[in-house]
Amino acid sequence: MEIKIMKNILDANDKLAAENREFFSKKKIMAVNIMASPGSGKTSVILKVIENIGKETGISVIEGDIASSIDADKIDTLGIPVVQINTGGGCHLDANMIKAAVEDMPVRESSILFIENVGNLVCPSSFDLGESLKLVIASVPEGHDKPYKYTSMFEGADVIILNKVDLMPYIDFDRDSFYKGIRALNEKAPVFEISCRTGDGVKEFTDWLRSKAEKS
Amino acid sequence: MEIKIMKNILDANDKLAAENREFFSKKKIMAVNIMASPGSGKTSVILKVIENIGKETGISVIEGDIASSIDADKIDTLGIPVVQINTGGGCHLDANMIKAAVEDMPVRESSILFIENVGNLVCPSSFDLGESLKLVIASVPEGHDKPYKYTSMFEGADVIILNKVDLMPYIDFDRDSFYKGIRALNEKAPVFEISCRTGDGVKEFTDWLRSKAEKS
Repeated sequence: MEIKIMKNILDANDKLAAENREFFSKKKIMAVNIMASPGSGKTSVILKVIENIGKETGISVIEGDIASSIDADKIDTLGIPVVQINTGGGCHLDANMIKAAVEDMPVRESSILFIENVGNLVCPSSFDLGESLKLVIASVPEGHDKPYKYTSMFEGADVIILNKVDLMPYIDFDRDSFYKGIRALNEKAPVFEISCRTGDGVKEFTDWLRSKAEKS
Repeated sequence: MEIKIMKNILDANDKLAAENREFFSKKKIMAVNIMASPGSGKTSVILKVIENIGKETGISVIEGDIASSIDADKIDTLGIPVVQINTGGGCHLDANMIKAAVEDMPVRESSILFIENVGNLVCPSSFDLGESLKLVIASVPEGHDKPYKYTSMFEGADVIILNKVDLMPYIDFDRDSFYKGIRALNEKAPVFEISCRTGDGVKEFTDWLRSKAEKS
């Protein structure tokens, strides 16, 4: 009974996600679903990319959080269109929320839309939003064992960032084990090592993202 | 429909949680439900407490993870009774899992049982396990804004640890904002600042925990 209803919810979500995907494709919008643990640097990555890529690319942002508008306020300060979704307890965004948010904001054609999911390495991986790309961010202080424990998140990623590499000297982080864990699940996703604090690696990731957007 | 079924699930969980609570109380077991983001140091805290308190106190551990037995293996190496629960995608432990695990392992009378929940600052806060204490761990690299975003987790905590304080010099962590966020939700829970890496603050937390266990 419970399983059947869960399946219905997922079916309904997939239908709306397909509509979102068609909308994004028609408007040549590259929608990036950003998923990570709390505090791994989702908003910092968005801010850094905006800084590097410039506003003229036409970036817009959807911020997902259980409560607060802390992240949306940071984006808004830069004059970037942003909508905050508060799930009020919900542990992930879903396609319906994205549909409503996109109707509510000016998303330019041929632009990038960042969708910052709720900070959670589990539930967001089950809900298709209609995104073009799934970006999973891990961070050095979380430790190298995350791919072994949160398998579906790393399995489904189109691109992976390892953030906070500036903290590497202060943490026992086994880089080989981290990559081995990822490659056991996901052979293809490129991994970018960056530090939003020092700016290291941000340009490489931004260049990759821009080239993806141009092809989309 | 969906809401009603969710309510039924929670009611069923609460019933089993009450049974667990009675069992723990009868056996004078202090069950500590440890909740935190992935990589904030749940297992490290357990290992440090074991190191400080000594095995003779009769500690046992339940490890919750979506996949892998990495954490249980670390506990097992110390000769501490441990059961690994793999939720296989589930984003939290529930009372039924704890009931089954406790039946499966030797938990001594007048002892401490650590229950390490799935790494997730959202879902575990909705499921009573029958625990005696809810311990929420935040860590410095996650940032000071977590209490503002993951409100129910901090609201329900009986005790809070701020881990990885050794990283404070390398991170923009606003301690005042962190405490202000907690106290807006939770007036009573003591907060212990510790570093599992350097050992700072571990003794103070362990002493507090031991005095709680003696009273329970």
